[in-house]
Amino acid sequence: MSRKMVLLTWGHSNPRTAKTATGLLRYCPDECVAVLDPDHAGKTAQEFLEVGGDTPIIAALDQAPGADTLVLGIAPPGGKVPPAWRAVILQAIDRGMNILSGLHDFLSDDSQLAAAASAKGVCITDVRKNHFKQIARRQGLREDCCRLHTVGHDCSVGKMVVSLELERGLKARGRDACFVATGQTGIMVSGEGLPIDCMVADFVNGAAEKLVLDTQHHEIIIVEGQGSLVHPSYSAVTLGLLHGCAPHGLVFVFEAGRDTVGGLDHVRLPSLPKQRELFETMASIHQPCETIGLAMNGRCLNKTQADELARAIEGELGLPVVDVIRDGADRLVDAAEDFYQSKRWQAVPA
Amino acid sequence: MSRKMVLLTWGHSNPRTAKTATGLLRYCPDECVAVLDPDHAGKTAQEFLEVGGDTPIIAALDQAPGADTLVLGIAPPGGKVPPAWRAVILQAIDRGMNILSGLHDFLSDDSQLAAAASAKGVCITDVRKNHFKQIARRQGLREDCCRLHTVGHDCSVGKMVVSLELERGLKARGRDACFVATGQTGIMVSGEGLPIDCMVADFVNGAAEKLVLDTQHHEIIIVEGQGSLVHPSYSAVTLGLLHGCAPHGLVFVFEAGRDTVGGLDHVRLPSLPKQRELFETMASIHQPCETIGLAMNGRCLNKTQADELARAIEGELGLPVVDVIRDGADRLVDAAEDFYQSKRWQAVPA
Repeated sequence: MSRKMVLLTWGHSNPRTAKTATGLLRYCPDECVAVLDPDHAGKTAQEFLEVGGDTPIIAALDQAPGADTLVLGIAPPGGKVPPAWRAVILQAIDRGMNILSGLHDFLSDDSQLAAAASAKGVCITDVRKNHFKQIARRQGLREDCCRLHTVGHDCSVGKMVVSLELERGLKARGRDACFVATGQTGIMVSGEGLPIDCMVADFVNGAAEKLVLDTQHHEIIIVEGQGSLVHPSYSAVTLGLLHGCAPHGLVFVFEAGRDTVGGLDHVRLPSLPKQRELFETMASIHQPCETIGLAMNGRCLNKTQADELARAIEGELGLPVVDVIRDGADRLVDAAEDFYQSKRWQAVPA
Repeated sequence: MSRKMVLLTWGHSNPRTAKTATGLLRYCPDECVAVLDPDHAGKTAQEFLEVGGDTPIIAALDQAPGADTLVLGIAPPGGKVPPAWRAVILQAIDRGMNILSGLHDFLSDDSQLAAAASAKGVCITDVRKNHFKQIARRQGLREDCCRLHTVGHDCSVGKMVVSLELERGLKARGRDACFVATGQTGIMVSGEGLPIDCMVADFVNGAAEKLVLDTQHHEIIIVEGQGSLVHPSYSAVTLGLLHGCAPHGLVFVFEAGRDTVGGLDHVRLPSLPKQRELFETMASIHQPCETIGLAMNGRCLNKTQADELARAIEGELGLPVVDVIRDGADRLVDAAEDFYQSKRWQAVPA
């Protein structure tokens, strides 16, 4: 059941804020009809979102008459609906379009929107809405499933992209690999998963564990990471996910040149070696866990700068450092395949 | 506005499960009329809950005709209402009593209970219910408020008790100290606070920060801890709270003799020195934080054993180890007062 999606990014058409839109443009390009942003109409997605090729940016919904779904294409801190978007959402409903949202503010709880959707017979899907209530028990983990987990030094650095590229690369080599979505965009892309950052706090670890229990019939699972252990706002999400999915191997994702927390410029990020140590320490409390490679988001550097930095960090940490957007994920996939074949993760009590 | 409370612990009348009841018996004794447990009627609270003195255990609500509030006195994993309790809750409503609950299952969302309460004009208060939606920003922390935080190796080891005893002891010495409640029982005792374990995950850190911002006009705040960084189920709650309240000093609470996670006997607890290191490491990412003392819950040891163990741990860690129930909190209060007067926490950038 293919969707025909218009991605609403009005006022937020940049790769950092419009994370949901860029994720869908990258991984579901055939389902993306247009980007909706009156301020940039007539341009292409590629020009503003660094992905999406010729997908047009349109000014109004009547420019995409065949579309059946309006997607709220952003993931802002706190997850609120921009006030100006309400009229667009109501227009979409009036045109008979379904609404797909990953915000913390649930559109389906908004009486005006819910009534309009009901009258038109369309669906409002709030991807983050859930009633999950199970605690993690650290039981039932299979010894024959290799659990990988992407972590990172901040939000919005590319953990989902790296996870999906790892899945794609491992599958291309014949490995039975499975991407496990933990955030709104990953869930929209893969059609499954749990929105970890929207769980009731006591059940964060439990939700992550549930995702593992549901997918561990695969040889390798790659659990999408969220936030960072050093993020003042979201470290609870990150640790619950890390502990709940009980990874054997970590892939550390970072953005080159970022030395303060995004949106919190007064908070400095610790060094990469320090952060690697923090993640390995917290992941290894009840079983060994090691970092198997790093993914560098080099969007703020030119190719030469990025290569130089990657080689320097490789030398410092003794691990592959790969810019998966610029250079492809092959060397990270090698690292994951080598780790899988080493079987050293199997020697570990769960 | 003093309450006249009956504490419902039927089927759960032991100090571990009936945490809410024991907290109220210890810190609001004048408001506790009776404990309701038909299986032990005629006995006293002290016999089954190790606190509460002669407070009677009754078989039915008509044995406490003056009571105006029924409190659900337990805090089970996952927070569900025991099915047998529904009839008791309905009886209480029918008698015109208010209902006070700290469970994850919200009684006020139960249509039968809500309708009954509405018909009788009584209140159902779900202490854990909240709509808090603010992220932590690590801004606005005062440099003249000393932030203490009780942490521990597991749930249900006494963090709330230690926090309240520290507040009491510091106040007795003329210090302007404030207990900051983060759990359902602490909130029922103090009348304020936020139920950290019931926040939406993205806002856990933010809720803890909000509690600090609201109370930092005091000289010392003692933020009640939750769970443990090594707890497979609840570490998300613990880290979000630790980062959100940004403590200068930690008091580490543990139960002597406990070497596996409560309710998860297959999960071993790391050693105390290792756990102290984990907490200090995670608390010190953005500012220095040190452990100022340990509180030992010695309920499974006799006095001689407890003293011997406490002295041995003091020798190993170089910090005071105090059984606050058996010996009083004086030596921990000394440590807190010394830390406050040292001013070394003030040298720290927030």
